[in-house]
Amino acid sequence: MAHSDTAPRAAPLYATLADSLQTLIDQGTLKPGHRIPSVRRMAMQRDVSIATVLQAYSVLENRGLLEARPQSGYYVRPKLLAQIPEPRMARPMARPAYVGDNDLAAAIVAQSEDPEFLPLGAACPDPALFPNRKLARILGAVVRDDPALLGRYAMNSAHEPLAREIARRYLQAGAPLNHDELVITIGCTEAINLSLRAIAQPGDTIAIETPAYFGFLEALQSLGFRVLEIPSDPRSGIDLEALRKALQDNPVKALLAMPSFQNPLGSCMPDTRKERLYEILTEFDIPAIEDDIYGDLHYEERRPKPLKAWDRDGRVLLCGSFGKTLSPGLRVGWCAPGRYLERVRRLKFAHTMGTPIVLQKALADFLRNGGYDHHLRSIRRAYQNQLHLFSQAVLREFPKGTRLSRPQGGFILWVELPPELDAVQLHHAAMAHRITLAPGPLFSIKGRYRNCLRMNCGIPWSDGIDDALKQLGQLALAQKG
Amino acid sequence: MAHSDTAPRAAPLYATLADSLQTLIDQGTLKPGHRIPSVRRMAMQRDVSIATVLQAYSVLENRGLLEARPQSGYYVRPKLLAQIPEPRMARPMARPAYVGDNDLAAAIVAQSEDPEFLPLGAACPDPALFPNRKLARILGAVVRDDPALLGRYAMNSAHEPLAREIARRYLQAGAPLNHDELVITIGCTEAINLSLRAIAQPGDTIAIETPAYFGFLEALQSLGFRVLEIPSDPRSGIDLEALRKALQDNPVKALLAMPSFQNPLGSCMPDTRKERLYEILTEFDIPAIEDDIYGDLHYEERRPKPLKAWDRDGRVLLCGSFGKTLSPGLRVGWCAPGRYLERVRRLKFAHTMGTPIVLQKALADFLRNGGYDHHLRSIRRAYQNQLHLFSQAVLREFPKGTRLSRPQGGFILWVELPPELDAVQLHHAAMAHRITLAPGPLFSIKGRYRNCLRMNCGIPWSDGIDDALKQLGQLALAQKG
Repeated sequence: MAHSDTAPRAAPLYATLADSLQTLIDQGTLKPGHRIPSVRRMAMQRDVSIATVLQAYSVLENRGLLEARPQSGYYVRPKLLAQIPEPRMARPMARPAYVGDNDLAAAIVAQSEDPEFLPLGAACPDPALFPNRKLARILGAVVRDDPALLGRYAMNSAHEPLAREIARRYLQAGAPLNHDELVITIGCTEAINLSLRAIAQPGDTIAIETPAYFGFLEALQSLGFRVLEIPSDPRSGIDLEALRKALQDNPVKALLAMPSFQNPLGSCMPDTRKERLYEILTEFDIPAIEDDIYGDLHYEERRPKPLKAWDRDGRVLLCGSFGKTLSPGLRVGWCAPGRYLERVRRLKFAHTMGTPIVLQKALADFLRNGGYDHHLRSIRRAYQNQLHLFSQAVLREFPKGTRLSRPQGGFILWVELPPELDAVQLHHAAMAHRITLAPGPLFSIKGRYRNCLRMNCGIPWSDGIDDALKQLGQLALAQKG
Repeated sequence: MAHSDTAPRAAPLYATLADSLQTLIDQGTLKPGHRIPSVRRMAMQRDVSIATVLQAYSVLENRGLLEARPQSGYYVRPKLLAQIPEPRMARPMARPAYVGDNDLAAAIVAQSEDPEFLPLGAACPDPALFPNRKLARILGAVVRDDPALLGRYAMNSAHEPLAREIARRYLQAGAPLNHDELVITIGCTEAINLSLRAIAQPGDTIAIETPAYFGFLEALQSLGFRVLEIPSDPRSGIDLEALRKALQDNPVKALLAMPSFQNPLGSCMPDTRKERLYEILTEFDIPAIEDDIYGDLHYEERRPKPLKAWDRDGRVLLCGSFGKTLSPGLRVGWCAPGRYLERVRRLKFAHTMGTPIVLQKALADFLRNGGYDHHLRSIRRAYQNQLHLFSQAVLREFPKGTRLSRPQGGFILWVELPPELDAVQLHHAAMAHRITLAPGPLFSIKGRYRNCLRMNCGIPWSDGIDDALKQLGQLALAQKG
């Protein structure tokens, strides 16, 4: 302090600190999305007071370079993201069509199990993000305390304590459900399949968003449905006017959609649009299968309401699972099928009979006593942070003209390369570098999105990922050249 | 010994002992199917030498009153069973037809979970027959040793160590398989469903045995298939001539059958008939889905070969599970789909994606180190013994004219009541006494078998069961009027 007294009219300490930190950000030493040292730590490192650091951070926040995240700290703000262009919306489809064969999806998913590959293709979070040890302890206790559960068939459509926990959570999310409206399934995948079979017959037309999760396309193909692709805005979801027109012009049997954090766009329909969507469903008297698997992974404070929250007559079949939030390995999901409850129950019995009780009980115990909400908060922060880091790296490394989705939840990024680039080719080139990608045509029944790809940001940032994205950027540039 | 010297020319001791035991059997004190005291114990009880007891037991064996079972002891032979009439074979069906709705099946299965009911309806063994504690320990160890398994999607179609164990067992059973031909499924139920979808389209005709497991009918209905019922002999299985004729007269797409210990008849096709069946399949160039779920539950020394053992061109889709032998609760089954492997794999991915790895690994560990063969021997003895006790009681308590199946494996009995009786009515009457039954019409698409019922003998004999069967007998007699 004596030191600054004798110096010529120097800038205040906090300003010096702020400037020096800005230099680190500008040079890329502190990367967008990275957390900077805590106030306490920075004060010790730079030998200044806590008040000085707080003031410096506040200056950088005002300059738009830092952002405070509650209970987490200060992060370098991915400032550019808000300015870069988002992917473009597809044009509507003329007529319903059957889904063609798509061997690429199966191959990419199989490779995501291979530890030799960096799995940017499949939507698989890093296992280290889940509370596996705690869940393992709980599952161990469940089978130890009641081993006879292993000797019994699970013939009921839900283990009641688990159904109650799920119903309770939907109540909090604004969609009151009775626990006995739920059917517990083998992941969200079975929930979607059973729902489709409950509401439509082979040959019927199902409307879906485009681009759409390739697992939907697999299911729709295997069940023999026709598909009508409805354009979807990367930010606000299904184009309601296009949907309306499609329903007027075509005998659509049902809608299959992800209103909250759609895969692959990450779009989330605002409440008003969800309400409007429900009105359209009512007007044309068709049901909707709502895949809400990413609903709990919101970055903002409030969880988005599921479409089911507006459902007054049981036309929404709400599907979800613990696969993205707690345990992909247990394969436990659910369906609240509304007025189709009995049909979904019967189909569940006919197809897989029951979902293992020991797994259902372990999840129920975890939800009750395992600190699920605490875990959710932490995994949401991790996903948000990772998504930012991936976005920044893609912007830095990929060819000029690349567009990026701007999801407000989940861990999936949709990348639109300049139109002359070919993501399938990029995928093949990436394979040689042991990186998997999910090229755009996977997400369409007609090979659209040739210059797009979906990127899994469920993996904590590392130098390895940094290198991989640099590599991908070079491969893309090479294609361009 | 001095005692017999002074007596008038008495019968030898062993003969006296034999006669006194025969009296106990005749009076019903020692019941058919019951184990009598061991040789050592009887010698102590009656204060005679072991040689005397051995000789007495041998006399009773010659008289057809006792039977020795290896490593288990001597049992009162259910002598009458060989003499009572077996159920009659159904007549062939004229044309394929769709399966009607059958709400009874779902209701009966749901009730089998209710501890208030004696579950004679569903084919559910008593949980106490399974090594639940050991399996719980193994599952606990699996998740403790590698908790990250809970955090990973199971995207491969099989956990290799489990597939290897299953393949090894089929090699021993005379049906060599490669481990990579297997898809691990959610129970046998999913295996059957995926197989059906892999080989046929809605509207196609599937040939099945009659009577047939109601789960098959549920699956066939939900998938929109037509069904052609082929008569099946209660002892030797599918009527091959009737099958041949059906294939000549109808566009049958595939056969779905249980060649070993059929549910509900318990029939087992001898090797020669299985071979002949395979020839017919080849002649008409159709595939067969083989449900082998009861194959390991043979009472005789040798496991029956699966039909798959004759398969030279991949037309047999072999399905099985651990549900009847080791753990109904884990819901782990398999399918070896032959030439349809890729299609079944894709359908598995589309419908439930994967089967939880932790469950697959626990089963693999149990098969390797858990004493599975030892357990199988003991559960086979238990099922055989229980089936005999149930059979004897039904004969004793049910109206004259009742016919009974004579299974050589499994734990299911098929009871044909006198033609004027109505098993559906009996089922409703039994419900009031908290007993579930599976009436015959459940096992047919056209309401056949009104006077038949399937009985679950998977529950260890007890006074409660004795009382229940007496009760059922009286209800049946009351119906007779």
